[in-house]
Amino acid sequence: MLNYFTLSFRKEISLRELPESQEIILQSSTRKLTFNKPSAGLKTAVKTLYDTGGTVSKLKHIVQQSDGIYGLLKFHLYLQKFISLGWICHSVFPLATAVPLTSDYQFSIPVVHWQEQCFTLSRFAYLHQVAGQMVLESPLSQAQVTLLDWRTVALVAKLSQPQTCSTLVSEIPGVTQEIGQQFLSLLLATQMVFLPEAENAALAQWDFHDLLFHARSRQGRHANPIGDTYRFLGQIEPPPAIKPPMSEAVIQLYQPNLEYLKTTDSPLTYVLEKRRSLRNYHQTPITIKQLGELLYRSARVKNLINSELGEYSNRPYPAGGGLYELELYPIINTCQGIDSGLYHYNPLIHQLCRISEKTKGVEALLKEAWYASGQQDMPQVLIVISARFQRLSWKYESIAYSLILKHVGVLYQTMYLVATAMNIAPCALGSGNADLFAKVAGTDYYTESSVGEFMLGSKFSAMDRATGFRKT
Amino acid sequence: MLNYFTLSFRKEISLRELPESQEIILQSSTRKLTFNKPSAGLKTAVKTLYDTGGTVSKLKHIVQQSDGIYGLLKFHLYLQKFISLGWICHSVFPLATAVPLTSDYQFSIPVVHWQEQCFTLSRFAYLHQVAGQMVLESPLSQAQVTLLDWRTVALVAKLSQPQTCSTLVSEIPGVTQEIGQQFLSLLLATQMVFLPEAENAALAQWDFHDLLFHARSRQGRHANPIGDTYRFLGQIEPPPAIKPPMSEAVIQLYQPNLEYLKTTDSPLTYVLEKRRSLRNYHQTPITIKQLGELLYRSARVKNLINSELGEYSNRPYPAGGGLYELELYPIINTCQGIDSGLYHYNPLIHQLCRISEKTKGVEALLKEAWYASGQQDMPQVLIVISARFQRLSWKYESIAYSLILKHVGVLYQTMYLVATAMNIAPCALGSGNADLFAKVAGTDYYTESSVGEFMLGSKFSAMDRATGFRKT
Repeated sequence: MLNYFTLSFRKEISLRELPESQEIILQSSTRKLTFNKPSAGLKTAVKTLYDTGGTVSKLKHIVQQSDGIYGLLKFHLYLQKFISLGWICHSVFPLATAVPLTSDYQFSIPVVHWQEQCFTLSRFAYLHQVAGQMVLESPLSQAQVTLLDWRTVALVAKLSQPQTCSTLVSEIPGVTQEIGQQFLSLLLATQMVFLPEAENAALAQWDFHDLLFHARSRQGRHANPIGDTYRFLGQIEPPPAIKPPMSEAVIQLYQPNLEYLKTTDSPLTYVLEKRRSLRNYHQTPITIKQLGELLYRSARVKNLINSELGEYSNRPYPAGGGLYELELYPIINTCQGIDSGLYHYNPLIHQLCRISEKTKGVEALLKEAWYASGQQDMPQVLIVISARFQRLSWKYESIAYSLILKHVGVLYQTMYLVATAMNIAPCALGSGNADLFAKVAGTDYYTESSVGEFMLGSKFSAMDRATGFRKT
Repeated sequence: MLNYFTLSFRKEISLRELPESQEIILQSSTRKLTFNKPSAGLKTAVKTLYDTGGTVSKLKHIVQQSDGIYGLLKFHLYLQKFISLGWICHSVFPLATAVPLTSDYQFSIPVVHWQEQCFTLSRFAYLHQVAGQMVLESPLSQAQVTLLDWRTVALVAKLSQPQTCSTLVSEIPGVTQEIGQQFLSLLLATQMVFLPEAENAALAQWDFHDLLFHARSRQGRHANPIGDTYRFLGQIEPPPAIKPPMSEAVIQLYQPNLEYLKTTDSPLTYVLEKRRSLRNYHQTPITIKQLGELLYRSARVKNLINSELGEYSNRPYPAGGGLYELELYPIINTCQGIDSGLYHYNPLIHQLCRISEKTKGVEALLKEAWYASGQQDMPQVLIVISARFQRLSWKYESIAYSLILKHVGVLYQTMYLVATAMNIAPCALGSGNADLFAKVAGTDYYTESSVGEFMLGSKFSAMDRATGFRKT
């Protein structure tokens, strides 16, 4: 069945021959296989997989000639083992190579009626340039398909419409029906193309970017480095722990007495059980003193630490590596004691820096928040949360953005609880406009743009509620 | 400069002619432009943009013939307006069309020395199939480039290596140097290819999947529907609010007295200020009673509500739409009063369902958590958080996965604070293996897999710390 593929070891697999002990050692980054005095045929076949690669027929021929039928059976088992470890690339020359990305690998081809069956490129498959090479990837696949020829890309493009094997290869110079069939087999085995009946309800409900992100930011189906790799250390300076002031127009904020609050604040369980998202406000807006207290209790810098790997800090909410990439931008709509407009919170010196008045752009951000929250009251204060992305991506690979969103959640719940304890109405939002924010705040989209939104307002008192007292 | 592109309105732009008032009305989903008694040339040019499209030279010729030079100037301003509104597609026939995705659009081409300059495909550009068509997209771009011919795809593939205009078009049948230059201009104007000097440090530190996800899950640079669109309503049944029990081996958990805790629990500020990530444990492990209390206080179902749009619930931590897609899987390593193994938490009836003993797969999950937390103590209990993705994606479009990660953060901070109040050692983790979890828990990766990890253990007492008492 798989006789026509050319098999070879992945580049990462090393082969060592120890003449003294007559051992051959194959090694990946996580696994080692030792062959003790291998038979001549097995030895040649393994070295062929390492050097030039070969078709299964060729490899079997090599083994059977030297080792006979029993040796052939043994080789077959080894080959299965190599494949399931994700050590073997499958190539269809001159078109493409499937490179395994996982160490628990499957490569199998469903039964296909080549004459009638139609094939379509999966909507999750995408082609892009990696280190100067076009590769086909998909969050459904355990492999990356390297495209070796521009004709391969043309074939992939044709598969955006349903194709039989013969319509697929027509027009493409030098690609026979036989090669086309082999190529389709490769794409089927790597989940890049689908037979129509393969769709299901779970997959139908995934957005392309969501599944791609899930597959690439978690471990399991990619071979990229993951975690704190510090890949830019010594090459690029990490951004500072504290964002420099954005203007000279600063407002010192009220600082609550924490020692007093530590003993007099509402019990955690009381606050946790009482917390609700509130989107309707009392007509008398919250005060700048309340906003100052909320920011201090939720997001101030408690201390700043210098290390060889850069500055980090401690703040009331937890964050990966103490890097604290999130920045808070209160947009004041109506708040007692401060002019409306856009501000930036400096968490180190507990000040607001004024960026602009309530411009059209600022109003558009407020209006989008109002839409996102179901068009109830306009927020009195909208805290836009941005991320200085490189704070995290300088240290963390593959997981940086997923950490950022988890941090947004952690900060959301912190502000929810503090607002509830303070009797302010809180509501976190699920979406916002990152481009518009960058434009309005004057930040570079790729360096810092918005990742979360949190609304605040003054709460109805119990009496307001009972008498139906509302602003009109 | 742009004379060779064929310009046409986006498909979404409608044109209406009102014979009585002699008005022409152009309309997008958000904007309307009315031409009151337009001159003959302007009228014909606008209709050409709507019907077949035309090159700028052709359109200008139409206008100048009827309206003269003053009419031409006016048309030029209108055209600039149409482009900046994101209403105009630019095509290079027979190869490709750039379709704007935003309503604040720029389309400009840098000065290029066509003879010498080399071009490379951006590592953020990707080709994929959307509704049967190959499109080139990029989180750097305000446009989507629709590829009209398989030769276009071959050209894009060649750009994975640096190409001058003449090396690019060689070998590709029927593509002249002139068309190649137009096509490169289109890719430059849409940020799909780059001149070497265009790279910067901020972009260098973005992972491909991170930037793609940021651009697509937030508003600003895509035209996809976003928010609660309920796109599968009436087609696919949404998953139930409560996951059915995973086994019959259930353990009823301890339920704390909330009313008592509401008055006696530590003050919020005390807990918030005290919270720390702790990764070293006392040798006497935590108890099942403690685990029960933590789960009850953090994640139980408070009430279950039926609506026409499906079931939702209330729990101690906030979640978008009350959908609560997150599931908690405590992995018991060492915990007093319960056997080690993998369990699932039923938040409605406050029970653990036993899934398996401490198999090799379960041990691998524990070990990965230990690695991710910096190889200090092995977690006594590891709570793996999974998501039943379709709970959210059934309702929310574009933002489902970003909401899930924000919810993970919200739950992290809730468990952090409850654990701190209970004097248990908490630590949230930044990465985990979603494929391995699905395999070990027996879930379908696309229906439910892991999105977060949280470790628990017993805390050193102050005395342990002072005397350096540690397990060995």
